[in-house]
Amino acid sequence: MIETHEIISYVAATCTTASFLPQAILTIKTKDTDGLSLGMYSLFSIGVLCWLIYGILIEDEAIYIANAITLVLAGIILSYKIYNTLFRK
Amino acid sequence: MIETHEIISYVAATCTTASFLPQAILTIKTKDTDGLSLGMYSLFSIGVLCWLIYGILIEDEAIYIANAITLVLAGIILSYKIYNTLFRK
Repeated sequence: MIETHEIISYVAATCTTASFLPQAILTIKTKDTDGLSLGMYSLFSIGVLCWLIYGILIEDEAIYIANAITLVLAGIILSYKIYNTLFRK
Repeated sequence: MIETHEIISYVAATCTTASFLPQAILTIKTKDTDGLSLGMYSLFSIGVLCWLIYGILIEDEAIYIANAITLVLAGIILSYKIYNTLFRK
């Protein structure tokens, strides 16, 4: 039988992974990255990449799939931020 | 002996937790939340709260401490976003 803490971990993983979707959509639509921290998205992307590698190493499909999705979304946001930082005032 | 995947998980947790610090500092300083997604910070805070509960349930100190810190930082950013959405154009 599935235990309470397992259900909570699935809800948690779904929320934290899915949360970057509305942010990526907003950033793609508005291209407004003034309020976004370059430090945050740089550190966060490195962290998620490490979680992805960790998931692959321990062969945990849920961990590496969730982090692969998050890495793509955070990577899109980071790319917009870097582009705006370099090429726009 | 500490294994490679454990070291990677510590680096990952440190990066993803610490990443919200520069974002919280930027948001407190500039109060600019136009580029921040309300959906993201709402979903993300719920997710981190679930990870915190999960850490407490399985009695994993590293998980609940990391997520408690992230929850405080994400909560600060979310509060600014809600305030600006409700009381400012």
